[in-house]
Amino acid sequence: MKTLRYRDETTGEPQLAILVKDTVYNVTRQVPHWTEPVQMWYALRALGIPFEDAAARLCTGEGISFHELDEAGHLLPPVVAREVWAAGVTYERSREARNAETKISDSVYDRVYAAERPELFFKATADRVVPPGNPLGLRSDSSWMVPEPELSVVISATGDIIGWTVGNDLSSRDIEGENPLYLPQAKVFSRSCSFGPVLLWHTPSTTPADWTVSLEIHREGQLAFSGSVPFRQFRRRVDELVDFLCRDNPVPDGTVLMTGTGIVPPDDFTLTPGDRVDICIDAIGTLVNPIAAPMAL
Amino acid sequence: MKTLRYRDETTGEPQLAILVKDTVYNVTRQVPHWTEPVQMWYALRALGIPFEDAAARLCTGEGISFHELDEAGHLLPPVVAREVWAAGVTYERSREARNAETKISDSVYDRVYAAERPELFFKATADRVVPPGNPLGLRSDSSWMVPEPELSVVISATGDIIGWTVGNDLSSRDIEGENPLYLPQAKVFSRSCSFGPVLLWHTPSTTPADWTVSLEIHREGQLAFSGSVPFRQFRRRVDELVDFLCRDNPVPDGTVLMTGTGIVPPDDFTLTPGDRVDICIDAIGTLVNPIAAPMAL
Amino acid sequence: MKTLRYRDETTGEPQLAILVKDTVYNVTRQVPHWTEPVQMWYALRALGIPFEDAAARLCTGEGISFHELDEAGHLLPPVVAREVWAAGVTYERSREARNAETKISDSVYDRVYAAERPELFFKATADRVVPPGNPLGLRSDSSWMVPEPELSVVISATGDIIGWTVGNDLSSRDIEGENPLYLPQAKVFSRSCSFGPVLLWHTPSTTPADWTVSLEIHREGQLAFSGSVPFRQFRRRVDELVDFLCRDNPVPDGTVLMTGTGIVPPDDFTLTPGDRVDICIDAIGTLVNPIAAPMAL
Amino acid sequence: MKTLRYRDETTGEPQLAILVKDTVYNVTRQVPHWTEPVQMWYALRALGIPFEDAAARLCTGEGISFHELDEAGHLLPPVVAREVWAAGVTYERSREARNAETKISDSVYDRVYAAERPELFFKATADRVVPPGNPLGLRSDSSWMVPEPELSVVISATGDIIGWTVGNDLSSRDIEGENPLYLPQAKVFSRSCSFGPVLLWHTPSTTPADWTVSLEIHREGQLAFSGSVPFRQFRRRVDELVDFLCRDNPVPDGTVLMTGTGIVPPDDFTLTPGDRVDICIDAIGTLVNPIAAPMAL
Repeated sequence: MKTLRYRDETTGEPQLAILVKDTVYNVTRQVPHWTEPVQMWYALRALGIPFEDAAARLCTGEGISFHELDEAGHLLPPVVAREVWAAGVTYERSREARNAETKISDSVYDRVYAAERPELFFKATADRVVPPGNPLGLRSDSSWMVPEPELSVVISATGDIIGWTVGNDLSSRDIEGENPLYLPQAKVFSRSCSFGPVLLWHTPSTTPADWTVSLEIHREGQLAFSGSVPFRQFRRRVDELVDFLCRDNPVPDGTVLMTGTGIVPPDDFTLTPGDRVDICIDAIGTLVNPIAAPMAL
Repeated sequence: MKTLRYRDETTGEPQLAILVKDTVYNVTRQVPHWTEPVQMWYALRALGIPFEDAAARLCTGEGISFHELDEAGHLLPPVVAREVWAAGVTYERSREARNAETKISDSVYDRVYAAERPELFFKATADRVVPPGNPLGLRSDSSWMVPEPELSVVISATGDIIGWTVGNDLSSRDIEGENPLYLPQAKVFSRSCSFGPVLLWHTPSTTPADWTVSLEIHREGQLAFSGSVPFRQFRRRVDELVDFLCRDNPVPDGTVLMTGTGIVPPDDFTLTPGDRVDICIDAIGTLVNPIAAPMAL
Repeated sequence: MKTLRYRDETTGEPQLAILVKDTVYNVTRQVPHWTEPVQMWYALRALGIPFEDAAARLCTGEGISFHELDEAGHLLPPVVAREVWAAGVTYERSREARNAETKISDSVYDRVYAAERPELFFKATADRVVPPGNPLGLRSDSSWMVPEPELSVVISATGDIIGWTVGNDLSSRDIEGENPLYLPQAKVFSRSCSFGPVLLWHTPSTTPADWTVSLEIHREGQLAFSGSVPFRQFRRRVDELVDFLCRDNPVPDGTVLMTGTGIVPPDDFTLTPGDRVDICIDAIGTLVNPIAAPMAL
Repeated sequence: MKTLRYRDETTGEPQLAILVKDTVYNVTRQVPHWTEPVQMWYALRALGIPFEDAAARLCTGEGISFHELDEAGHLLPPVVAREVWAAGVTYERSREARNAETKISDSVYDRVYAAERPELFFKATADRVVPPGNPLGLRSDSSWMVPEPELSVVISATGDIIGWTVGNDLSSRDIEGENPLYLPQAKVFSRSCSFGPVLLWHTPSTTPADWTVSLEIHREGQLAFSGSVPFRQFRRRVDELVDFLCRDNPVPDGTVLMTGTGIVPPDDFTLTPGDRVDICIDAIGTLVNPIAAPMAL
């Protein structure tokens, strides 16, 4: 089952919906407080209802077109994430890239790549996240910025995996390259994060190992960069990342954990305002965000 | 003017109050929505009322004893901070200590100490903060933990300095020492942060340069460690830290920025459950927190 | 299925629970946002799950004792009713009583008893409702006050019947007797209303026509008054009352409609502080409230 | 000082503002939580700041045009009233009119007119109130409906008078005429109430006794009815109404009490969809509402 959230055109209120192919079935009109998926997930779990059975019950009526919602700019993040966390150096390619950008001789990236404990960092609060289709914003003090396309996992306060989505961890390479201690400044800023467009609900038969993450960066109508990485190359286990994240550190319901990137554009590439970044995981969908200049404050 | 917050014994509702010597004058009973200081600060600023004039108006009636509130465990953090940030390596002593703990040969701490850009990191959300008097919790996977006593500044969403408080940035030295990329895990965890007991409101005549931060760690009735550092040894400017924090990164009203520590216990010292940590800045007050074992989850 | 709400002893947070005989099974711990029954009702309805099937799934673990919850004073109203409405003169006995108390010669009560349109009035907001077991408060300016024991129906914003509960519409007979225009003052005041202890969920096989409402008033350990009325003597239809209530007048989810009383103590009876009022409908349960003196404001 | 509320065109957020002649000065941008006047009122009172001094401080910058806000339909009710109450038969004219409409021979209206205790009734919750400029809605089951133009007083939870506004208590005369017990149905329904456009803050020099309430009903570009009544003809005292309202009945901050009407159109007049009702009290302003057909539910 895939769910998404959108803003009702008339009332402006957030709506939870189920996506079946290109058709969107509103859930919130049937269960008014289900405006985000986590509470629905708790209910289905407690009632022992398979997600597909629930979807069959709830997908009634005519539905509306996903394409039209998307075009109209009404999509919202598929889950309300009070906290977004991310992991780093979880692919060989990431280790290489971060070694390349750093000015530090004794590589902290080689060390973490090989260590039991993963790199985990706080990426964003809910108000730093932009909805699918909305612009991510560059930092005013960085001249080397890249999207980081990442399979992202949505977890509950109990540490259970609720589902999967596509994430973009927009990052500054020069700020972090200057000093690993600048990581929070390279990662946490206004409009630095997006995920969506949908949440694929997790079941025992969900197989991320078969998925591929692919990235396309479009500039002035041209493809400026593309790349892809199979999730098989991921060097950690997702449940291990979740365990480390929650160790002594309870996180709220709906927390998003981005699992790190395995695709890095060449070192001479930086995003510029007007670019469009598409990140696709076939089993989930394609997250699209334009890139905007830093916001005048 | 100093304000504090406490929980009303009967209703459980948070109360804002002004502290004059040892006497606490309730503000919330006079202005029901002033349950935290930031909105009062905006009002006084817009109305052009000097803080001391406001205090004189609002300190009516008999008041209650600060000592009794504190003993009863009713104090709350003096401001509702949705976000707590912290700076690092802002004193020579901190540079030495972090060099001592690290396993990295090319010191990121020397670099940041000398660089224009400071180290800033996300320290805590509101639910990871414990009130004054309440126990800070150790991590289950660290065997080298220390309090970090820090002058802390409270800012508005507009980036203005509202006031000053005393902060304790409880940290794991071995986790961060292993790899600077583990900093978020060494810093962000359940019950890892406390500040208070009061907010000293900022005016043009507030002079942090004259203050001294002092730390006492008590164990089994004995003084296990004490130290102090004058704020003159602070190697940054507070307004510069605030500027870097807010650069491309709007923070919410009431954000606390801890300015880094200049007191570090000897390398063979670690906190243990039952310790009590007192941090004093004379002009503000003394923040006291016992230390608790990790919480069984 | 019967549900109730109570306040968690430790956290103070409201909990929704299912009652099976004398055992209470917590629902909120399984589905955190189900802290009141209406949203659970919408979910079960949309998913097509029979209430008894849901109860079977959700009643897991050991449960706690209803008796102990009740004794400890932790019960809450079984539904959060932003609005409580009531109907009047829906039994012959009520017509007689209100004719007896009135000083008006042309009886408005005879008229409404015979008319198509029922008497409906606004009874209480949520903060005028006291939980089961908590004291109802007398008016300071009335010397003739009585409980009104009433079968009460809980409805959704869509006008559907969610379930049934027991209500006490505490009323002043002398204020209303003076003039029917004083009805709001005879009915709406602090601590004037209670309902509970449970919500019996409505199904097609629910048969209010078979029920009996009974009232006992205890004073100083003695039975001061008792009476009962079978619901067969109710002179309206519940769905008709709901239709009139919602006509041009959308009400919020969880609105309680008290259906009027058929039991009236003798004209020389008035409640006094210290009395205890028990109202029982066998199929639902017994609502108990002590009577308190007016509150000093 | 006059304040009003409006919806920000861009963010949709409610704004509190001060009106000086035709110019509106935003307060919320200066004090973010002052989105309604009651909390500002508590603050000014506690700080001992005269309202006009506060207005002088807060009216900075260019301001915007009241006329344009009004035309754009952005006005909101000047206070968030969780409860609206009203008084009846407070003018000789009202007694006559209600005697004329009633089918009861023993007049309850004559009785209440002469009695110490006033008629008070629950008129509306916040969601039944329409903003200034927005349509009031007729009932589907009434064929005799009139506006009731009423001086309205805004009170605090402490029973203090905060200020004054203009109210329209839309009423059904035939439903109430049928039986006084139908009063709630004649008064409480969807879109049955409006007040505004501004709140005139109460000071010791406020003199309602000098004011005149006037009503104009426009139909198809013509004046269909007009009338006016000096507040001197009001047969009660406002503080007496407030005392009776709050007796044993605490009301929330910002409660609006409409003081009853002294203007009644001729008995053959009823409102129809498309009418426009203007109610003016010179010292306050003019409340304008179109009249709409009942809403299809």
